[in-house]
Amino acid sequence: VSKYRLLTPGPTQVPESALLAMARGLRHHRTAEFRAVLAEVQEGLRDVLRTGNDVLLLTSSGTGAMEAAVANLVPRGGKAIVTQSGKFSERWSELCATFGIEAVRHEVPWGEPFSAEALAGLLREHPDAAAVFTTLMETSTGVGHDIEAIGGVVGPSKALLVVDGISGAGVMRCLTDAWQIDVLAVGSQKALMVPPGLSLLTVSPAAWKQIESIWRPVYYFDLLAYRKALAKSDTPYTPAIPLVAALAESLRQIRSQGMESIWARGELLSRATRAGVEALGLRLFARRPAAGMTAVCIPDAIDGGLFLKRLAARFGIKVAGGQGQVKGRIFRIAHMGMVDELDILGTIAAIELVLVELGQDVKLGTGVAAASRVLAEDKAEGGRRKAE
Amino acid sequence: VSKYRLLTPGPTQVPESALLAMARGLRHHRTAEFRAVLAEVQEGLRDVLRTGNDVLLLTSSGTGAMEAAVANLVPRGGKAIVTQSGKFSERWSELCATFGIEAVRHEVPWGEPFSAEALAGLLREHPDAAAVFTTLMETSTGVGHDIEAIGGVVGPSKALLVVDGISGAGVMRCLTDAWQIDVLAVGSQKALMVPPGLSLLTVSPAAWKQIESIWRPVYYFDLLAYRKALAKSDTPYTPAIPLVAALAESLRQIRSQGMESIWARGELLSRATRAGVEALGLRLFARRPAAGMTAVCIPDAIDGGLFLKRLAARFGIKVAGGQGQVKGRIFRIAHMGMVDELDILGTIAAIELVLVELGQDVKLGTGVAAASRVLAEDKAEGGRRKAE
Repeated sequence: VSKYRLLTPGPTQVPESALLAMARGLRHHRTAEFRAVLAEVQEGLRDVLRTGNDVLLLTSSGTGAMEAAVANLVPRGGKAIVTQSGKFSERWSELCATFGIEAVRHEVPWGEPFSAEALAGLLREHPDAAAVFTTLMETSTGVGHDIEAIGGVVGPSKALLVVDGISGAGVMRCLTDAWQIDVLAVGSQKALMVPPGLSLLTVSPAAWKQIESIWRPVYYFDLLAYRKALAKSDTPYTPAIPLVAALAESLRQIRSQGMESIWARGELLSRATRAGVEALGLRLFARRPAAGMTAVCIPDAIDGGLFLKRLAARFGIKVAGGQGQVKGRIFRIAHMGMVDELDILGTIAAIELVLVELGQDVKLGTGVAAASRVLAEDKAEGGRRKAE
Repeated sequence: VSKYRLLTPGPTQVPESALLAMARGLRHHRTAEFRAVLAEVQEGLRDVLRTGNDVLLLTSSGTGAMEAAVANLVPRGGKAIVTQSGKFSERWSELCATFGIEAVRHEVPWGEPFSAEALAGLLREHPDAAAVFTTLMETSTGVGHDIEAIGGVVGPSKALLVVDGISGAGVMRCLTDAWQIDVLAVGSQKALMVPPGLSLLTVSPAAWKQIESIWRPVYYFDLLAYRKALAKSDTPYTPAIPLVAALAESLRQIRSQGMESIWARGELLSRATRAGVEALGLRLFARRPAAGMTAVCIPDAIDGGLFLKRLAARFGIKVAGGQGQVKGRIFRIAHMGMVDELDILGTIAAIELVLVELGQDVKLGTGVAAASRVLAEDKAEGGRRKAE
């Protein structure tokens, strides 16, 4: 049995201490002991997500958090502006359609980023839009969006800014309050290094005001019920207790590193990964690559499915393939959470070997050398900064 | 630190092997390996729940499964018959109200069971009701309902039978197909001995027909998406992987015991518990006690909160208090999943000691003796049956 090396953009590797936290005998959740864990998690998430807003904890996948945002923030029959650039941002449109909300689309081709200017235009054209639904990192394309710029545009408008940070938050710099994000959705199984099963929503005072004022036919995802429970460090329904315990543990590790250092590492690994694959002659898919993940085009001459199978079978490397319209045409390497420098160098070495095996003209070591140079230069730069 | 003895009707104790299954390093879910686990879980759940129907796996609490049933089975503006006898069955009414469904109520006082005859009358009066929403074990009162009789009444009608078996299924005899249950909701954290975070829904062909034919503004809980994924042993959204692994492990244990033996043990522990507390002069709360849980009235002279605190502080025993209108007036001992004979005898012994401590006139040993007699007689009876 080969080793297992998980480099997908969710689920990600989970620290041993968080895995072991799940294996502890189950304690009841309506107790002072568990409320203390929930309070600690709340404080940790506020720090990690750079917000003073409430952070609600849902037992659901990230899609549940997206549904909760749409269903609670926009009245049925109301209007929203949605950005669309890949499989996951498409979900905003689908959710609006499901809940009878008119979705005004800012759509760009897969691999392209949204434009804050285009959004500004749509906001002027549709001053009655209740919210703008957008995406920090589009996981299907590896595009990282300039949410700071988008916040600058949406902030002064009457619309609420809702960001799918499910896979991006926690690895890409994301200043929820400073960037005027009203609602940020986050998944547990990405940069937070927790298994899937929990999702999070930050909710601003302006968003609460909207939620209180509209008719919302919601029950399991009724955010007011979550807020009421949160005031007592509780949840409205039985939470996924072991995942909450894992989250508490992962947050301790994240906070001991510090967000500045985590964001910088995401950037560094992203640069190293890009340098490595480009040195092998591979093209990047995203026009504006995210710090959390690198999407790489598979050369036309190569069978994408076979390529991924060889990586998994020979080296235990599980990266993600393409979805939807880019199925078989790209692969995606996540560099978030526990993924470190050697994981990336190892992955690039494996890509080199598999490419050669599949008949590509690749000089072994080229990709690893290019990625290593990025790491070495960063280290030297860090040394220089310290010396100054 | 005292030992921890969890005897609540969810969460329940989790077998060590299931806890350890959660602690294994995370594997990706879109793989042949995980699909094999999902297929095994599907087969196991069909066996445990006595059904050939699809069993859908949701990442949510049991309330999510209830919402999915209501939102997928009854058209907006349609009509349903709901039974109501406690905090959890009230949720059916609340869900209908949320989704614009007219709820015709069969309501009985807390502690009383529903009547199949009354339901027959309502079905005659409301032949246009799309579904009957009812409850196997009402967790807030400890009442077990005669779903077989209710199935006999609902089966011949045009309405679908939907049963909240969240806490009851897996400990109380429940023959999904034979009793004509169209949709059964189950929680992971009860008799299935898995931590909270997963819920299950069985769906009959008649229910699928209804789901396909009505307009359903649902997304995260769109059951057709779950069915489509199930056909490939998959889930539409990222599932709570460690909880699925725990469920696979618990199902192995449950099936190695066999359902007849598990149901018989639930009945036996229920009888022993009732005999024990009644011998101490305590009254039962449920008129038709369920095999999964015993609700006991707290004597007027005793402070209910203090009573539960002493049980927890002195003996590490966590039983459940009362909710809603019986808060402080009852306590609830679950006997499902891993709870065994000695757990029950120990709990009764602790109750005796705490009652004496709180000034009640109780003869120490009386309750334990009565409960033990039930166990001894059952063993002797089993021996006689074997000898015959």
